[in-house]
Amino acid sequence: MYEVRGIRLAVAAAGIRYKGRDDLLLIEVAEGGTCAAVFTRNAFCAAPVTVAREHLAKGSIRYLLTNSGNANAGTGVPGLRAARETCRLLAGMAGCAMSQVMPFSTGVIGQDLPVDPFANAVPTLLSGLTEDNWARAAAAIMTTDTVPKLASREVRLAGGSVTVTGITKGSGMICPDMATMLAYVATDAQVPQPVLQAMLNHAVDRSFNSITVDGDTSTNDACVLLASGASGIAVEAMDSPDGQLLSGAVQAVCAELAEMIVRDGEGATKLVRVHVQSAADVAEARLVAYAVAHSPLVKTALFASDPNWGRILAAVGRAGVTGLDVDSIRIWLGDACIVSGGGRDPGYTEEAGKAVMKQSDIEIRIDLARGDTEVEVLTCDLSYDYVKINAEYRS
Amino acid sequence: MYEVRGIRLAVAAAGIRYKGRDDLLLIEVAEGGTCAAVFTRNAFCAAPVTVAREHLAKGSIRYLLTNSGNANAGTGVPGLRAARETCRLLAGMAGCAMSQVMPFSTGVIGQDLPVDPFANAVPTLLSGLTEDNWARAAAAIMTTDTVPKLASREVRLAGGSVTVTGITKGSGMICPDMATMLAYVATDAQVPQPVLQAMLNHAVDRSFNSITVDGDTSTNDACVLLASGASGIAVEAMDSPDGQLLSGAVQAVCAELAEMIVRDGEGATKLVRVHVQSAADVAEARLVAYAVAHSPLVKTALFASDPNWGRILAAVGRAGVTGLDVDSIRIWLGDACIVSGGGRDPGYTEEAGKAVMKQSDIEIRIDLARGDTEVEVLTCDLSYDYVKINAEYRS
Repeated sequence: MYEVRGIRLAVAAAGIRYKGRDDLLLIEVAEGGTCAAVFTRNAFCAAPVTVAREHLAKGSIRYLLTNSGNANAGTGVPGLRAARETCRLLAGMAGCAMSQVMPFSTGVIGQDLPVDPFANAVPTLLSGLTEDNWARAAAAIMTTDTVPKLASREVRLAGGSVTVTGITKGSGMICPDMATMLAYVATDAQVPQPVLQAMLNHAVDRSFNSITVDGDTSTNDACVLLASGASGIAVEAMDSPDGQLLSGAVQAVCAELAEMIVRDGEGATKLVRVHVQSAADVAEARLVAYAVAHSPLVKTALFASDPNWGRILAAVGRAGVTGLDVDSIRIWLGDACIVSGGGRDPGYTEEAGKAVMKQSDIEIRIDLARGDTEVEVLTCDLSYDYVKINAEYRS
Repeated sequence: MYEVRGIRLAVAAAGIRYKGRDDLLLIEVAEGGTCAAVFTRNAFCAAPVTVAREHLAKGSIRYLLTNSGNANAGTGVPGLRAARETCRLLAGMAGCAMSQVMPFSTGVIGQDLPVDPFANAVPTLLSGLTEDNWARAAAAIMTTDTVPKLASREVRLAGGSVTVTGITKGSGMICPDMATMLAYVATDAQVPQPVLQAMLNHAVDRSFNSITVDGDTSTNDACVLLASGASGIAVEAMDSPDGQLLSGAVQAVCAELAEMIVRDGEGATKLVRVHVQSAADVAEARLVAYAVAHSPLVKTALFASDPNWGRILAAVGRAGVTGLDVDSIRIWLGDACIVSGGGRDPGYTEEAGKAVMKQSDIEIRIDLARGDTEVEVLTCDLSYDYVKINAEYRS
């Protein structure tokens, strides 16, 4: 794990919902740093998402303030007031403008966010800021997550090395559309805001926007990329050699974090890559990939390690792609071809299917024979524990 | 239960997959009767669906031959050959043309359908045809269903009374798109084929095409409406007074059968009506209704009787309707308004929500405040048993 010069973090236990654990995280970016972000497209987006968007538009972000345990979503006008009040509190004590603080929340939807715990904890947060707090930060933002999630890279640019480190949280209500639950990635490179935003968009499309646990896009999804500039190494354009290297490192960190979310998907016992190839375009490739990745029948068969490949075939067939030539479609389960010529591949054996299903990482590959576009979506299986966690969460 | 003059049924235990239970059903419609049908839109439709479509196009259907235990789907060319062979066998012994037989299959996908059991059972089926076999017919087509499903109406037309009786099966892989798993409805009215088809389309849109258990559209869905004409009472047009009465009875039978499927949904403990009103059009109303009806988080909360209404709000928000004015949307759980003004309704109490959630039949009503279209989708909750049934089915 590489620290990021110019990025300091602090955590505190404010008792917002959980007892005896950290539930507040403050991230500070050095003055002059830049910030890019993407947010959920859920129409019922949470109050902090609305406020964070407003503040980002004003530029010069210095602080990201996050609480876990309460999503401050579905809370109407009082929710917006609470989100703004937490920013005002922090700005007052930190000596910056309120619009330089972006708020984030994650947890239960529909409960008023109390502001008092923030008032009590902000001094602790401000006095606790250090560059070596990434691991504690990853733990402070967890909800139903069972493990903290952190990824890090060092990349050598022409002027020297810079680091890219990120954390994320998320385990249920995962089907990001524009971003994921919460993810914060930071670099000490010096990057103009538009370039930083382009790098983030590029990385998110290929990471957080290509995973699903349960198809439910959250009200609070947000992914932020900070560039402190503290390394003194500037990256001026994404298509420069240095820009490509840095963009690659950002994408690698995002992809690693996204995969961690799926591995820690609620009740998940398996990681499943649904890879669609030879599609006519991205839209149809995603239709097919998500039809398979969201199918409860496919997901329960994966949980049971049952090579019930007919369920995969049925999901592909119902994906909604018009004019599919089913006789040309081929489907693989790991290295076993299961479908060709409109039905079971002649070479397929139940033993081969079972051998693949025993593994904990499984690839389902679908060749649509219609073009040259490919897309990969990560998902997990559907187990008793998914139902247990979601029938019991909140109670 | 009303019998239908001119419609005879027979069942047999052929041992295709299940031991010691009926797994074949033959339905005969009197000569001169008419037949309408709708089929799955799954691109990987089963072999019997392909053959049934071909035969229906040739007109003058006399027999519907159905097996349970094997879907004959994902079976390629050998599957088509087997489906045609079963029709040929029956036609030979019944003395009709092969194209007067429509084949149907339901059960496991991807296994070759053996023809020998049909050859052995066809004589039994033909000699066993009687008008009072509806209950045994409903039992013979079950797979993971826990109860047989039958509905019946008598309707008085100008010329006398006619009956409408139907059976269906289905419990999982339920998200009909054009039809349901399998449903057979028959009347002794005399109805021209185009009128019969119009009545069926009308009924299916408001019944089987508005239910979902798990969002997985089957490869084998089919719904057939037979009119034997044996009552001698003719209905020449759908928009005549008699046509409206008969059409209403067909719709009532289909709706009752569709509701039975959802009540018997795999692992279901609750029936849930998702009612979307004041939508701009049917498309957006269905987007919202299905987003809620398919949400695993909403479904597990229903299973737990937990009024976790934030999950409903989140599902509405992610449904993909553009330009939603979330401040105008109102959502009710039973008689309790849970959402207004962009968040929790001021009058909502957790006690009110809990009282609704305790019931076994629950309505979720969503008012989009955008127009005057309404749509209702029936679904069920997501329980441990859904996972159990689908992790263990086939083994």
